[in-house]
Amino acid sequence: MTALRDNRTSAATWELMEFAAAARYEDLDERVVRESKRCLLDFLGVAIGAADHDAPTLALVQIRELGGTPQATVLAHGDRTNVLNAALVNGVMSHVLDFDDTHMPTILHPTGPILAAGLAVGEWHERSGRDLIAAHAVAYEVSARISLALYPEHYDVGWHMTGTTGTFGGMTAAARMLDLPPDQLVHALGLAATQAAGHREHFGAMTKSFHMGKAATNGALAALLARRGYTAAPDPLEGRRAMFTVMSTAATPADLVSDLGERWEILRNGIKPYSCGVVTHAGIDAVRRLGTELEVRPDDVEAIELHVHPLVIELTSKPEPRTGLEGKFSIAFAGAIALLDGTARTHQFTDENVRRPDVVALRDRIHPTPDDSLSPIQAQAIARLRDGRELTVAVAAATGTPENPVTDAELHEKFHDLVDPVLGRGRGERLAAIVDSIDEAKSLDELTAACVR
Amino acid sequence: MTALRDNRTSAATWELMEFAAAARYEDLDERVVRESKRCLLDFLGVAIGAADHDAPTLALVQIRELGGTPQATVLAHGDRTNVLNAALVNGVMSHVLDFDDTHMPTILHPTGPILAAGLAVGEWHERSGRDLIAAHAVAYEVSARISLALYPEHYDVGWHMTGTTGTFGGMTAAARMLDLPPDQLVHALGLAATQAAGHREHFGAMTKSFHMGKAATNGALAALLARRGYTAAPDPLEGRRAMFTVMSTAATPADLVSDLGERWEILRNGIKPYSCGVVTHAGIDAVRRLGTELEVRPDDVEAIELHVHPLVIELTSKPEPRTGLEGKFSIAFAGAIALLDGTARTHQFTDENVRRPDVVALRDRIHPTPDDSLSPIQAQAIARLRDGRELTVAVAAATGTPENPVTDAELHEKFHDLVDPVLGRGRGERLAAIVDSIDEAKSLDELTAACVR
Repeated sequence: MTALRDNRTSAATWELMEFAAAARYEDLDERVVRESKRCLLDFLGVAIGAADHDAPTLALVQIRELGGTPQATVLAHGDRTNVLNAALVNGVMSHVLDFDDTHMPTILHPTGPILAAGLAVGEWHERSGRDLIAAHAVAYEVSARISLALYPEHYDVGWHMTGTTGTFGGMTAAARMLDLPPDQLVHALGLAATQAAGHREHFGAMTKSFHMGKAATNGALAALLARRGYTAAPDPLEGRRAMFTVMSTAATPADLVSDLGERWEILRNGIKPYSCGVVTHAGIDAVRRLGTELEVRPDDVEAIELHVHPLVIELTSKPEPRTGLEGKFSIAFAGAIALLDGTARTHQFTDENVRRPDVVALRDRIHPTPDDSLSPIQAQAIARLRDGRELTVAVAAATGTPENPVTDAELHEKFHDLVDPVLGRGRGERLAAIVDSIDEAKSLDELTAACVR
Repeated sequence: MTALRDNRTSAATWELMEFAAAARYEDLDERVVRESKRCLLDFLGVAIGAADHDAPTLALVQIRELGGTPQATVLAHGDRTNVLNAALVNGVMSHVLDFDDTHMPTILHPTGPILAAGLAVGEWHERSGRDLIAAHAVAYEVSARISLALYPEHYDVGWHMTGTTGTFGGMTAAARMLDLPPDQLVHALGLAATQAAGHREHFGAMTKSFHMGKAATNGALAALLARRGYTAAPDPLEGRRAMFTVMSTAATPADLVSDLGERWEILRNGIKPYSCGVVTHAGIDAVRRLGTELEVRPDDVEAIELHVHPLVIELTSKPEPRTGLEGKFSIAFAGAIALLDGTARTHQFTDENVRRPDVVALRDRIHPTPDDSLSPIQAQAIARLRDGRELTVAVAAATGTPENPVTDAELHEKFHDLVDPVLGRGRGERLAAIVDSIDEAKSLDELTAACVR
């Protein structure tokens, strides 16, 4: 590593980019490797499971018209196209179900842009499975660190973290696959920072998942151009007119490097049991457990007072969702369907279900209540029953959080629930097996081939 | 026009999109048509003149590797590639000299993204010369209106207008070439808004012109996806978590529509006589006129106190530029070279010139002084000569501003100065003639063919 630091680059930014270039698979904590592999399986599940949804299908039709050198594979569909097109469509695909993983401290959905970009560039450059896992772990760290430096003010004003800081995940993963040294990484960081975008206004529209696709493809473009020698400003995060100033009033650059290489942000990853925003999960757990643990039937319910963190109300208080997509932004609908159907996965968030009379009737009896005493992963459901009883379920940590993680068995169940209808059970099992032994794969060809139906 | 307004779309946003879809070439004021054609000639000049610079060359090498369906032409080089690639490279090309036009009230460089996107999509869809001119005029209006609603606070915090609001120029031009109706234009507007990006930190680096290329290609992508039925939030500018809130604290939505269709923003266009930021032009005029009008020779100068608007100091106070590119951000260098060489065009902003001993010596005797009594297009040079005399030049309106426009002859001189070294004099004259009669062209094929060397 002989790259020299431009003296105009802030020390923390440089240290993070040196780390991004230097960290090796062989040096990774085994818990980090394990969680990266779980992220890969979860990514493939949520993306392939969404292959035929409107947003990725429209994006795919468009990139087919645009064309490109066959470098990388579009998941499920099998198109071979250039890495930017593949990253775009695979990125959209991975977020359209709102079922992908979450860096819990910042509500960033980290893996989508990382693997949409990293898998495409890794396939093209014939990198190994270990290269992919290490790229994922390092790119997770970089994008989560930058998110920590910006959260919460950046998010509160209306930026979609995944659109903005997700770009650094895509960039870092692509840059690892291209072996960029730290000095070129600083240029790639600048090219990524200056493309970072995405407004929360689009939550509930196809454009939310577009943010994920763009974070992947913009990140990959940043790495590709930096590799060519395209240059950016030397201090693209901490400079006077740079990202931290322009896109935040309260950035904390120390988060870029505190305990870097010792504490790993991927160990604060959440993997979703429900296919909607992570902020709703504790509330869904609470209502669902009224049924699974206390045997409350929907018809018994007079009303449910559902105590949740105030952010849940801000994000998911659509009172009368009109589509399955809008249903993800209605905590009352999500709770109702979870009590009725026993879960809240992709088959629950449909246009039909938001109009089902029994769902609507129960939904209108669930009253979300902001409660400052709860954290965003906590909730409390107080059910008043028609027989006069009052029953309470308190959720201390939502299923899927680092405090209460989904088990490997639950993760595989979610994977097959999503993948098998698209690829078939046999191919689904084969793909899961390839992921399980990805650290031994010499290239990613077998993996990407197994993702195609 | 039977498109219906979603009642969640703000009235001003809807009116602007209805205007964008409806305005016809035949209804345009002849001054608007004339200025649009001047913008086209100027765009081709500044882009083709930069064809072999580092930034577009690196971008071109990259898009060649990425590949794409042959839909549109890369200026000068003649590559046929997909519209997104062509828009990216042609956009970068048009801004790399810092010589392209300016919407004076907001320092937006409007034409680059408009024509990089509009020419590509127009060539592909076999649109006429009149379609191109009308698309330019309308896209200018849309991007300038949104800029007015955001300027100055949005710019002051560090956003590069051309990267952000330029995206709407690229989107609108592409959408016109695709005949999008107003309801699809609202979705395209959302897809454009949520991609808008670019930090002023990168002024002085290759990434500044990358912003222009991205505004073009992101805008075109927004229009392409909206045409496919890809949807965004219904109120992407004025909604609660939408662009005007997220990217500004002081947006003025009334600017979107005040006197729309009566007052045309293109009549406030500036065409640059000097190949650097427009804020420097009054200062360059002032120092240059010491020589041309008062016959001051560089050796006569003891010191020049150069009074300029404070923004000029903020943007261009690099004391010791190390490259020609950095020289554009040094008002002292720009003034010095203008007095020595008689002008400040591309041949002046070179790595050699910033190191020339006579230039450095004069540069260090020019003292930029912020002066609140001046507007950004005004300047005053007070020269103290070695013989004891003190001479003053006051510039009331910089050359190239709407108040003091470059003449058609000067514009053609600038065009040939840029284009002839790349295409040859004969092809340069032929291209200028095609632009002069562009309103009669059935397609853009002759135009794009004439742009290739």
